[in-house]
Amino acid sequence: MLEARPHEPASLSDASSVNRDDVESRLDPITGNWTIFAPHRGQRPEEFVPPKDFVGKQIRCPFCPGNESETPPPVWVGRVVEDDSSHDVLDPSSFQSAKNDWSVRVVPNKFPAVGDASPRSHHAPKPPREASLFTRRPLTGGHEVIIESRSHATSLSQLDVAEIQLAFLAFRDRIRYWRGVPGIAYVTAFKNAGARAGASLRHTHSQLIATDRVPSAVASMIDRMIRHRVSSGCCLLCDLVRAELKARQRVVWRDKSLIAYCPFASHLPMLVRVTTLEHQACYEDLDDLMIESAARLVRRVVAWLEKIRPGTAYNFCLHTRPPGTQDPPDSFHWSIDIFPRITQIAGFEWGSHCMINPVLPEIAASKFRACAREEDPRRLR
Amino acid sequence: MLEARPHEPASLSDASSVNRDDVESRLDPITGNWTIFAPHRGQRPEEFVPPKDFVGKQIRCPFCPGNESETPPPVWVGRVVEDDSSHDVLDPSSFQSAKNDWSVRVVPNKFPAVGDASPRSHHAPKPPREASLFTRRPLTGGHEVIIESRSHATSLSQLDVAEIQLAFLAFRDRIRYWRGVPGIAYVTAFKNAGARAGASLRHTHSQLIATDRVPSAVASMIDRMIRHRVSSGCCLLCDLVRAELKARQRVVWRDKSLIAYCPFASHLPMLVRVTTLEHQACYEDLDDLMIESAARLVRRVVAWLEKIRPGTAYNFCLHTRPPGTQDPPDSFHWSIDIFPRITQIAGFEWGSHCMINPVLPEIAASKFRACAREEDPRRLR
Repeated sequence: MLEARPHEPASLSDASSVNRDDVESRLDPITGNWTIFAPHRGQRPEEFVPPKDFVGKQIRCPFCPGNESETPPPVWVGRVVEDDSSHDVLDPSSFQSAKNDWSVRVVPNKFPAVGDASPRSHHAPKPPREASLFTRRPLTGGHEVIIESRSHATSLSQLDVAEIQLAFLAFRDRIRYWRGVPGIAYVTAFKNAGARAGASLRHTHSQLIATDRVPSAVASMIDRMIRHRVSSGCCLLCDLVRAELKARQRVVWRDKSLIAYCPFASHLPMLVRVTTLEHQACYEDLDDLMIESAARLVRRVVAWLEKIRPGTAYNFCLHTRPPGTQDPPDSFHWSIDIFPRITQIAGFEWGSHCMINPVLPEIAASKFRACAREEDPRRLR
Repeated sequence: MLEARPHEPASLSDASSVNRDDVESRLDPITGNWTIFAPHRGQRPEEFVPPKDFVGKQIRCPFCPGNESETPPPVWVGRVVEDDSSHDVLDPSSFQSAKNDWSVRVVPNKFPAVGDASPRSHHAPKPPREASLFTRRPLTGGHEVIIESRSHATSLSQLDVAEIQLAFLAFRDRIRYWRGVPGIAYVTAFKNAGARAGASLRHTHSQLIATDRVPSAVASMIDRMIRHRVSSGCCLLCDLVRAELKARQRVVWRDKSLIAYCPFASHLPMLVRVTTLEHQACYEDLDDLMIESAARLVRRVVAWLEKIRPGTAYNFCLHTRPPGTQDPPDSFHWSIDIFPRITQIAGFEWGSHCMINPVLPEIAASKFRACAREEDPRRLR
């Protein structure tokens, strides 16, 4: 049994010998996909050394103070009150006159991945255009950028706690806004940090996309969660969290209200999932205190990750119940997945859609726990 | 309508202005997934310049002549006959005595992603180990490396036609071998060229993976193909090829027997699919002549790709009917997808499993056609 393994490699690639018996596949009960775990693959000879990050060009950063005119006007503005690290959410329309006085601001993406569906839009959604084998549809919704700091910081771990808390409150407010827009079926927030994670700009920012359709893979996850809820009477993620706490192999952190753990069948190496111990379908229904705690925990996870892999590119994805979901028994449960970009998706994964993960989540969790133990207590503010 | 668009951008990123109306999503009838096309996203400011390739380390190349002892003994050996560019397939067991006399050789991967299921293995497959939420299974099968040349070439386009033809015959012979091994349910061949495509070594090589289970995404594609076959009486890929030939928007190349085209709902930019015009479920059932033609065409597609994006990393994936498939009406149809690694999979794609493609396949196909027109006729041998 895997749990009985005595060794814990000191780095990602130092298993003691090539052992084909260590290959196993694990089922992700939420996605229904199997992940192949092949820890010895980290021992392969490697002719390529990845650059620390891609080369940077000199550009005028559109997210820095003074360059606000390079982005569309904000739809959300927050300001940290210096004296007591509390914060105000400002009226974005009145904010125009004092452009420069912000800590976190949210602006429409100038290069959106979806057509415009905001109430201000003049474009009525086009009717579907169908053909037997060539089915195409317009896609409408919103695409926003959450600029998380005035400073040209490049990672969440460099933010003040007050800044990241404001950014996480911005996610909540903007998700609430979009779930109220007629026709919006899906909303997600995510972060691309570093070129290898898909970022095109360095200044720390996240994004939100709202669309008029639930992506098919998300719909099929929700189907699985509904089936579990109906058959067992419990939320699948609540059950998983309880099982992880009992197994004590993959839990990174827990407190009274939150848990961070490395899921049993992670499709990506070193992935950490953060969620509430108590059932909660929608991130945007969390209260201020819980959102601020989640923001602090995500910042710490990123700091641990950067301690293990300095300068790593990473993403996070926020999953909340899609507004277009029909799940009467309240089967969904919000979560945030944080993961570094270590491996490249290669030909096998593209062809089979089956991921090969060289890092067991048990090993990943033990590394994160070691970082948590060594943490500077001042960061826990 | 998209087809009526008068302009064709001269590069991947020069649409004339940001136009949110150009966003549309398209359904891939084989996978059932929607891809978002957002051509204007190529105009985003870009602070990162990707390196030409990752930095190279000096290692003793295990695939070069003279270093054969660094790989396990070959399971397949082919030799180009210099005089007439014909080739011999040698008996790998008798080959041991004259190790150095090979053009293409296939060896077991020293760092396999699957446990051993070859008849030579002493390990009987373990029984499934199940737990309610933590389901794990051993994964057995084979993982082989096809070393495509004696020379330390780094891309298919640098190979002699005779070499790539031998490599493609090796795929056929090894897929045939694995589909005969009891318990093998899925076989695929693929190539990772360049670090961004997931390669760890430069010397030109492909890989083959055989497993005792059909990956769930592949099973669901096959379900869709079976449903189409049952409802329409035709193979879905045959129908798609006919529709592409009729639409004349996305076809890159065709001759009497083969077609290369950019699929309507490509999940990745600049992807080219190669297949036979005539229905054929299994790549490994093609005759020598057809395999040699397919090899030549894939080599040309890679050369076109490298003309458009010099030095690009790329993958290909070979899809053939999985031996474990129950498709009585013969619904599957083999194909090879070739694609450069242009975009990074970012947070939105990881969270939603919905891909954003900045390059319309109509644009991609026109670029490939332009390369085909300018091609050196000597390469068409």
